[in-house]
Amino acid sequence: MKLQTIKDARGSLTVAEKLPFPIKRAYWLHGIDVDAMRGGHAHRKLRRLMVAVSGRFQVSAKHGRHWNDVVLQDPSEGLLIEPMTWIELAEFSPGAVCLVLASEEHDEADCIRDFTEFTRAR
Amino acid sequence: MKLQTIKDARGSLTVAEKLPFPIKRAYWLHGIDVDAMRGGHAHRKLRRLMVAVSGRFQVSAKHGRHWNDVVLQDPSEGLLIEPMTWIELAEFSPGAVCLVLASEEHDEADCIRDFTEFTRAR
Repeated sequence: MKLQTIKDARGSLTVAEKLPFPIKRAYWLHGIDVDAMRGGHAHRKLRRLMVAVSGRFQVSAKHGRHWNDVVLQDPSEGLLIEPMTWIELAEFSPGAVCLVLASEEHDEADCIRDFTEFTRAR
Repeated sequence: MKLQTIKDARGSLTVAEKLPFPIKRAYWLHGIDVDAMRGGHAHRKLRRLMVAVSGRFQVSAKHGRHWNDVVLQDPSEGLLIEPMTWIELAEFSPGAVCLVLASEEHDEADCIRDFTEFTRAR
């Protein structure tokens, strides 16, 4: 989703408010090794908005039967990740920062970290 | 304030949850001209957590009688900005990104954009 962005000579300001869910938690990945693979899990209920606020990386998402790959590289665009979506992040550019705004506080019970279990749960 | 950070060989993950306020809005400054001055206002009620998720910049804050300057450059540290604090941001490094988590949705009436008015309101 395209996020409201105010751009002028000084730079850009991108705003996330009135999302489809309340923001209970924010986290960001930084100092990421360019060869790293992050993610590798799904959530049962949690919804997320993911943004490449700096640099670029690739998101591979499995929701339903199919995998979708998308490259995030625009700080004014957010990827809405619905529950029961398996996510893997890779191909980080040097200095990339991945911001996530999440609908729930951390709850390990909401998290599926085993792909076979994820496939069964669907 | 130091934010919870999980660091391993793949990189770092910093979390903001259970802040002293609910997160109603998130915004980030990006593509900032290195000569730019941002901020230049105060809020009557809004509270903010500000983080340099990429690069560095200087925050000049007037709360009460005195100015305090602080350099933000660590993605795992947040600056808690209380209401009635005049904020100016400058000396952005190339590619710097300033993330703000705010306690209220945008309300122009909450915003003081005139320094004289700010001084009087205090």
